[in-house]
Parts: sequence; structure tokens; C-alpha cells
Amino acid sequence: MYMAKVVGNVVATRKDESLVGYKLMVVKRINSKCEFIDDEEVAADYVGAGIGDYVLICRGSAVRVDESKQKVAIDMAIIGIIDTFDA
Amino acid sequence: MYMAKVVGNVVATRKDESLVGYKLMVVKRINSKCEFIDDEEVAADYVGAGIGDYVLICRGSAVRVDESKQKVAIDMAIIGIIDTFDA
Amino acid sequence: MYMAKVVGNVVATRKDESLVGYKLMVVKRINSKCEFIDDEEVAADYVGAGIGDYVLICRGSAVRVDESKQKVAIDMAIIGIIDTFDA
Amino acid sequence: MYMAKVVGNVVATRKDESLVGYKLMVVKRINSKCEFIDDEEVAADYVGAGIGDYVLICRGSAVRVDESKQKVAIDMAIIGIIDTFDA
Amino acid sequence: MYMAKVVGNVVATRKDESLVGYKLMVVKRINSKCEFIDDEEVAADYVGAGIGDYVLICRGSAVRVDESKQKVAIDMAIIGIIDTFDA
Repeated sequence: MYMAKVVGNVVATRKDESLVGYKLMVVKRINSKCEFIDDEEVAADYVGAGIGDYVLICRGSAVRVDESKQKVAIDMAIIGIIDTFDA
Repeated sequence: MYMAKVVGNVVATRKDESLVGYKLMVVKRINSKCEFIDDEEVAADYVGAGIGDYVLICRGSAVRVDESKQKVAIDMAIIGIIDTFDA
Repeated sequence: MYMAKVVGNVVATRKDESLVGYKLMVVKRINSKCEFIDDEEVAADYVGAGIGDYVLICRGSAVRVDESKQKVAIDMAIIGIIDTFDA
Repeated sequence: MYMAKVVGNVVATRKDESLVGYKLMVVKRINSKCEFIDDEEVAADYVGAGIGDYVLICRGSAVRVDESKQKVAIDMAIIGIIDTFDA
Repeated sequence: MYMAKVVGNVVATRKDESLVGYKLMVVKRINSKCEFIDDEEVAADYVGAGIGDYVLICRGSAVRVDESKQKVAIDMAIIGIIDTFDA
């Protein structure tokens, strides 16, 4: 996992039907000084995150472990909203 | 997932037979300014994308969750056509 | 796997419920001279590691092989505390 | 997936027994100008590629979807020989 | 897969119990000129490799395809000892 900031969202009308109902957010990875350290990625929002939130990003098959998500074409998700971190 | 632009396609007559019927597109990852930020990759097209489209790219086992794709040797796919995004 | 140092932890009250009970640590990858060589990542702690420990990091589905972890949205874990290494 | 050129092969007498019978090729990723853009990797050949061929590389569990390959310790394979591509 | 040189080993007394019995080696990726091209990683040894050996590294779920390894928290392994390669 890594830390990121939610910076926007993506609208895609034509898409794989498994994605219907998921909010797709643009996120940028941060370091412990809250500096951006990578280019934009797109993550499905599992926790009700909003633009400006610092979040925890998970990747790979880990984001489909839940029974309800096993047939969803998602490889990256926001799995937590960060209250605080130190480093 | 990440955002990319479709820039071309690949023709491969001799290939793993599981790939037959899939359109293989050359894509280049973009940032939120629509600047290219990585080298060319090849993605299977799941949504009818064309050259010049801005698309959503998914990687890994996520692209084989659908029953019809479980035996296909694909690790990257175009899963949406982006209408708009902000960041 | 790779070697890392535990440098902090993350508090996230709102998170995927599968994460409840896991300690989430901020780690930084190191080389064999114990120099930091990458940006901060977040790993679940499986072995009781503390801040300052040198640890072994594992990624991907490998961190969910245990029966108890198959439904947990984790893609990175601390799987060992390093006593010594040479290189 | 990405495009690569086959530049050599690897001989390993002592190896995981699941690899017996697979030809292991040294490949270098290319961009759409056929310039090398990454360091050498090793891919199992699924399609009868030879040195000098431009090929399509697939990674991860995708290369083990075929029934005959589910127990093979391979994470990268040549899955097509490229006739032409544009970009 | 890629080519690497074994440069050391890691001792970790406190570790995930699935790792007991596996030798954990420090490896450095090489290119076809045998130059080091990446930072140190840690791989489980499946083939009896020793320090100084040139080896073949495999990553991801591929290293757990064998029945005996399906519950082991390993994401990288030495799967062959390289006799020769050309590129």
C-alpha cells in the first residue's frame, strides 16, 4: 500500500460493465512530507473519499478479495482515509 | 488503473491462440495535463476504443475476472473510454 | 521481497473493514548499506515489528496465502525482522 | 503487454523442474521507434520466436492461464511475434 | 524473469512461520554485461544457489505454483542457476 492524495475524478460513460457503480478517483502518491512523488493514477473508491483527502491505496488482486468484488475489473482502490501518519 | 491515449495497434499473426479475436492497441500513459509520461505498452481493447481516444487502463489478473476471459493470456486492457477527468 | 526500515505508522479510522486489527506501518526500502532507496510505502505488520526495525517486506498475493488472511485487502506486509544480512 | 526484441537466450541446467522443456529467451523492451528502453529480461517462448524477432511480452499470472502451464514457475512469456505495429 | 547475481543472505529469526526452512538470499539484478542494474532484493532459494552464482529470478504468484509452496509468503525466488547466456 502507499499514501496518496485524491486530486480529481474520472468520468467514463463507455466502460467495462463490471465498473458500473464505482466512483473512479484520480490520485497522486505522496511521501511522508505530503509531497507528490508520482504521476496520476486512477483508483476505485471503497470508503467514501473526497477530493483533497489523504488516502491509503491498495493494488492488485487484494482489491478484489471481497465476495462482492471478485468479478470487477479493478486493480487499484482507495481502502482507507488517513487521519494521521508519522515517518 | 491509469489514464492513457490510444496511439496505434499491433498486428501479430503468430500468437498464443487465446488472443485470437482481441484487438491489441498501442497505448501511452498520460498525466492529468494529457502529457505522455511513459513508453508504449500494448493493451487488449474491451470497449471498442479507437486511435486518439483517451482511455482507462487496467492491469494484472483484474483484466481476466470475466468468465469469458479466464483463459486468455492478457495482462493489460482498455476498460473504459474517458469522457472527462479533472485533477 | 526486499529489505526496509520501519519509520512510522498510519492511523486510518475510516477504512475497508477487512483491515481492522492490522497495524499499518510506514516503511522505507533500504539497500545493503542501509541507505534509503525509495519513497515511503505502507505495510501491514505480521510479526510485531516496531519503529526502527529492519524488516523483510513481501508484496502481492503472497501476503494473503494464510487461511486467516484470504479476505483481507492487503498487498504488502512485514513478514520478518532482520537480524543480520550481508551483501 | 509490451513490445520487445529477442536478443539472446539463457542456458540453465540446474533449475526448477517445472521449467524443463521451455526455451528461455533474453528480451529487451522497445518503444514504437524500435529503440531499446529497458534492461534485459528473460521470457519463456510460447510461440517459436527466434533471435532478432520483435515480439509481444506478457507478464504475471496471465502467462499461466493455459491448463498445461498452471504449475510452471514462469512470470513472463513471449505470446506473439509482431508483424507490424504503428504508433 | 530476469538475471541476477547472488551477493549475500539474510538472517531473520522472527518471521512469518511459512518461511521456516527457506534460505533467503540477497540478489542484485544484472544486465547482459553482468553489470548491476538495480538495488538489492531478497529471494528464496529453490535450487541450491550460492553466493557469487548468476541466477534466474522469478516473481509473483509464479513462485508458489508448486503444491508444497502454496501457503508460503514468498513473492520472489531463485528458480535456476545460469550456465551461460548471450545477448
